Order: sequence, then C-alpha cells, then structure tokens
Amino acid sequence: MSQPLLQLALDHTSLQDAMQDVTRLHPYVDIIEAGTILCLCEGINAVRELRAQCPEKIIVADWKVADAGETLARQALGAGANWMTIICAAPLATIEKGHQVAQSLGGEIQIELFGHWTLDDARDWYRCGVRQAIYHRGRDAQASGQQWGDEDLARMKDLSDIGLELSVTGGLTPNDLPLFKQINVKSFIAGRALSQASDSVAVASEFKQKIAQIWGK
Amino acid sequence: MSQPLLQLALDHTSLQDAMQDVTRLHPYVDIIEAGTILCLCEGINAVRELRAQCPEKIIVADWKVADAGETLARQALGAGANWMTIICAAPLATIEKGHQVAQSLGGEIQIELFGHWTLDDARDWYRCGVRQAIYHRGRDAQASGQQWGDEDLARMKDLSDIGLELSVTGGLTPNDLPLFKQINVKSFIAGRALSQASDSVAVASEFKQKIAQIWGK
Repeated sequence: MSQPLLQLALDHTSLQDAMQDVTRLHPYVDIIEAGTILCLCEGINAVRELRAQCPEKIIVADWKVADAGETLARQALGAGANWMTIICAAPLATIEKGHQVAQSLGGEIQIELFGHWTLDDARDWYRCGVRQAIYHRGRDAQASGQQWGDEDLARMKDLSDIGLELSVTGGLTPNDLPLFKQINVKSFIAGRALSQASDSVAVASEFKQKIAQIWGK
Repeated sequence: MSQPLLQLALDHTSLQDAMQDVTRLHPYVDIIEAGTILCLCEGINAVRELRAQCPEKIIVADWKVADAGETLARQALGAGANWMTIICAAPLATIEKGHQVAQSLGGEIQIELFGHWTLDDARDWYRCGVRQAIYHRGRDAQASGQQWGDEDLARMKDLSDIGLELSVTGGLTPNDLPLFKQINVKSFIAGRALSQASDSVAVASEFKQKIAQIWGK
C-alpha cells in the first residue's frame, strides 16, 4: 500500500479567491482539485489556470459527469486535468467512454460515490478499466450530522477488495485519518479544513505528518 | 393537464456557438437551458448571458448538483436562472436546501433522474417541496442503442401520480411525442434535434405543432 496523497479541493465561487489558496498551499499538497462549485462558476478556465500555475501537480476536474463522458473527458484533459470525476449514477456507457478518452490522453477517471450504488456497479466500473473511486461524506450530509461510521469503513474495504483505490473526502481533519488505516487510500481530500483554517499551512503539514506516521515505513 | 412547453438545451462547448442557436431559435421555444457541457466550459457567465439575451424566457441551469445545494442554488438563481437541476443521487439534505433557496428566490428545483432511484426517493423529494423531475435517456445510453420503452412510460406515470411534473429528454424527435400522451409533461427538451437540424426553425415549429395537436384543446 503506497502512502496516501493530500488533495486540496478548491470550492470557491471565485477563481481569484481559489488562486490565493493555491499560491499559499501548493507546496504542501500533492493534488489540486478544481471543485464542482469553482468549475460551475468559472468554467474550464479554472482547470486551465491551475495547470498553468502548478505544472508539476496532479490536477483534478471535479465535474461529477453524468452524461457525455467522451466530450467532457476531452475538454477536461485538454484543459490540463490529469483526472476527471464521473458520478456513480452515470450510465456505464458514459463511464466507459470517459475512461477510454481519459486513458488515451494519459489521464484517469474517478467515480464519485453518491446516493444508491452497489458493489456490482463497482465491479462493472473496474471491468471498464476504472481504477479509482471517491468515497464521500457530502457537505450537506455533514451539516445534517452524518458521521464517519463502521458502515462507511466496511463499504470502503469492499471497494478496495474489488481493486479500486479510494480518495476520501467530507469534512476530514488530521485526527480522522487513523480511521482509514486499513483502507487502500489514494488521497485524502481537504477543502474547507485547509481554506478556512487560520493557519492553513500548519494544517496541511499536520495532514502530511499524520499520513507519514500511519502509512510511512 | 396544461400543454407541454418546448425547451432548447444548449450543450455546446462554446458560448458563442450556443448564442447563435439562441438568436435563431428563441422565438420558437419556451425555455432555454444552459446545458451541463456549456456550463462546465463557460461557467456561470453562460447563465448570465442567456438571461440578458432572453429576458422573457424561463432559463434553466442544468448543473446536476450533487452537493452544496444552498450555495449553488444561490449562484444559479443569482445569475438569472429560474430553475436549477439537482441529480437524484444527491443527499436529501442537498435537495431540501437547494429547494428552500430556490423557492425563496422565486425559482424551482428539477430532479434529474440518472442511475438507481426509487419511488420512495421521489416521494421524499415531493415531501421536501420539489415539484419537477427530468426523465432522461442519456446521450451515451442513446448511442449504445437504448430506446424509449414501456418501462420508461410506466415509471413516468408513477412519478406523475406522486405529483411530479416531468420534463422529458434524450434524442427526442417530433414523431416521439405521441408516446407521452398519458404523462403530465412539463416540457420536452430538445438539444441536438434542433441545433444540428439543417432547418432548425422548421423542426422547432414541428415540435410545437405536434404538442398542440396532442395536448391542445
């Protein structure tokens, strides 16, 4: 199991605000995510600017694609994204086409898990060639009090066993990380935990230290 | 049952191309949709420009929101949209908050149906105050050969019976409309059937004539 990466999610409504966080935090993270809110507000220019600003980082277009997988993968990767998200509710044809285009351009698809999905779905995604999924505790679900629980961890383990690497997101703090010790975690995604911290560099460093403590050799 | 409306879906990757279709077709349609592809490429400016260009039309932000319902409803309606779409896989909290904000700003939420959902979900959406859903044959599903069938029509009827008005989309042509005679259709959504027609005004008029023939008094 390789050491999980740290992903900065940018869910600002303005690219200018997002860029302030990027300037401050990019040395401390591995992956930078153009979040859905940012992309809907600022368009593909958000992805393009992040690529220009951070040529050495993995860039994610968190588009939660539900249809038109081919067109959107071509757009996202063409603008500089390495990875594009597809929502689990998308038809398998969308996932398959998105994956084929992403792969042909040297990128990857991440399936974003929301609502109803089954392990049979996950096996279908894997058969299509997809190797990543995002396990999500949504911000509205968090706000309504939903916590990380044993059921989450059991489902993550099942997805890991199918062969999917997981990124984990949803109000994570460094103190949550030991929960995921048994999971094949690709990355921990932090948005407001970083962008709204009074000392965001310190929080990013704390994430990195915890990761090294738990998963380091 | 009131007469279904006609909705022009703009799924261009460039706002300039979309605007050419709007200029030509807006007199012949009731609703103009800033499609997901257009919004991801051009950002919220797409919604803003459509509102400026078509002050008298219903404008839809087809954002397929999965999270952050409050923030995104505020953005979409603030930019001039009347309706915003939320994907059925979103947590109920997202739908509830999106609906509350939309309603407070004089707008509406449409639930976009993809993947696994149940009639119990639909009853929950209705209980939250949502009154619209979009029944969808995705473009990737179409391309892989999926047709409109009795099962689609039966599920639409069930949704109608719960009290949801349905917009119907997915490779529709005027000749498909009689299929939906028994359904409480809010709008028929046409994208490429209009934008890629050699005489798109004639096709729009044909949609309108068929609607009047089937649903008119």
